[in-house]
Amino acid sequence: MPHDKTNQPPAGAPHEDDVVLSTRVRLARNLRDFPFPARLSAEGRQKVAAQVRAAAAAAEDAIGPLQWIDMARLPRVKAISMAERRVISAEFACQSPQSALLLRNDEALSIMLCEEDHLRIQALCPGLALSAAFALADAADTALGKHLAYAFDDHLGYLTQCPTNLGTAMRASVLLHLPALAALGRVARLSESISKLGLTIRGAFGEGSDAEGALFQLSNQVTLGITESQALENLQALTLQIAEQERRARADALKDPQWENKVWRAYGILKYARFLESGDALKLLSYVRMGAAGGLLPVSPAVVSTLMTALQPATLALSRAADDPATRDLARAEMIREALS
Amino acid sequence: MPHDKTNQPPAGAPHEDDVVLSTRVRLARNLRDFPFPARLSAEGRQKVAAQVRAAAAAAEDAIGPLQWIDMARLPRVKAISMAERRVISAEFACQSPQSALLLRNDEALSIMLCEEDHLRIQALCPGLALSAAFALADAADTALGKHLAYAFDDHLGYLTQCPTNLGTAMRASVLLHLPALAALGRVARLSESISKLGLTIRGAFGEGSDAEGALFQLSNQVTLGITESQALENLQALTLQIAEQERRARADALKDPQWENKVWRAYGILKYARFLESGDALKLLSYVRMGAAGGLLPVSPAVVSTLMTALQPATLALSRAADDPATRDLARAEMIREALS
Repeated sequence: MPHDKTNQPPAGAPHEDDVVLSTRVRLARNLRDFPFPARLSAEGRQKVAAQVRAAAAAAEDAIGPLQWIDMARLPRVKAISMAERRVISAEFACQSPQSALLLRNDEALSIMLCEEDHLRIQALCPGLALSAAFALADAADTALGKHLAYAFDDHLGYLTQCPTNLGTAMRASVLLHLPALAALGRVARLSESISKLGLTIRGAFGEGSDAEGALFQLSNQVTLGITESQALENLQALTLQIAEQERRARADALKDPQWENKVWRAYGILKYARFLESGDALKLLSYVRMGAAGGLLPVSPAVVSTLMTALQPATLALSRAADDPATRDLARAEMIREALS
Repeated sequence: MPHDKTNQPPAGAPHEDDVVLSTRVRLARNLRDFPFPARLSAEGRQKVAAQVRAAAAAAEDAIGPLQWIDMARLPRVKAISMAERRVISAEFACQSPQSALLLRNDEALSIMLCEEDHLRIQALCPGLALSAAFALADAADTALGKHLAYAFDDHLGYLTQCPTNLGTAMRASVLLHLPALAALGRVARLSESISKLGLTIRGAFGEGSDAEGALFQLSNQVTLGITESQALENLQALTLQIAEQERRARADALKDPQWENKVWRAYGILKYARFLESGDALKLLSYVRMGAAGGLLPVSPAVVSTLMTALQPATLALSRAADDPATRDLARAEMIREALS
């Protein structure tokens, strides 16, 4: 199912990354000959896993080598760190052990087995890269489809455990940094008009959560009666529109000395603090990212985006061997100081 | 009235300046042949002023050249800035215009005319320098006394308008930075035992004020039945004792990562903020001064002490041509950034 109508070149430097941190496309697929995961026995899970593993091996020429990760053997902190880095879902990280993950070395392509569906094929790219991410997931889907019998209905499209995913079974999302619109209280208003267009926006840290660090996830909701291309085009157009609104709001905000002051104070604190809690750090990095993107600070927004992921508890615990919260707060401050110096 | 029993060498680098910012000695003198200032006519004030001016001119060999400043002609902002720099009293800065000031170029010696008394001879030195400050004020007093008829009683000593100054008519004070003792709530307790010793401690910004920036003024209270030497020795001994307590409390505090963190965060904010209100700046500088004195920060405590004075509204308005509060907040942040960079 190749996708060719896009505005987005497939490679090069990240696009729109002053506002868009990353793009993710997930395709849900199920095997025709097995019940959905919720009603699947342990034995059935093993069979599904074996079939997918064999298919991935057979498709290696097309999709490259994928690492097989038995989630039962993966330390919990590594699983949670993967969720923090958006490589797997939070649910999958916390799930009972009878599941497995196929993962490309660069983590741009992953396949969760027996999450909500038998397969969740996911592509993750920096910046705004809907067509590139879709192309990657789509290529994996096509290659695996040659060796697997997908549950597919000519009328409904791909069949999924949850009916809200029926059809394309595609969920595409972009991670947005909207400090200026959020400060103006305009994200809530945006949210209403977005839902009328069949899309949704929410705080990046869980449903209905407050948007810590002004990070929001915008994704398509409708999967039935629409093609992947149409859904991606809608998401692309809306993302560009929101990014433009955010840019205008930032330009206004940075003319205000009080805003400029907040940006510089946040930068100063992060450059020197010896102790940073994750919520505090995220809030301060949000100001710094805005200042960096606006050319006010001598930092690249990409460095700040990396920090926003790296500062999260499990990822930090792994990278800095910091097990307890107090040690993590120290390690977090140290990591940020190093990155900003 | 030379003073020779001290522990303090008269010159060199400031002493105890991790804790003691400055030392001030004031001698109150009145002329025998005139009523005290409260009951003095405008004509009487002019005569007093003329006599003191002539005496200062005659004593120039001993006390050096002093500038004559007619307070009526001094812009209010300059007068207030002098009070902020402790060169004159706040009352004198705000007083009705019929008064004058004699001021040495380096501002270490000043003589207020018709403040509460006919003459207030004041010496101001950095760090702990009670004997040096007293020697300076005393030399001026002696030299002027050769040309003026002071109101002096063999039994009571120097006569002053307010009876609480009778006797030595000397008020010696040290400006202390006590961030660690203040944070522990121990200054209030100190205050009780200090008053039993005939001394007093209070917030540096006016009687009973909260100690903004953890700055406190310790001074002698008793002027009757005590010699200048005894009063200065008591003050010296108590200052050294409090400084030692403060140092121990700081050493304990700086072992606490939360304290260390506060110090570094304050430093970061001050290095980068674009906008700083004076109270906020003073509070942050207090942390930075503590870190600087503790060798934690690459700043000299003397630089921070200078900033603590220079950031005050009138002094800042003069040095940076900043008339309104918003411009001053910008100029204050700029000045501090420059000093810390």
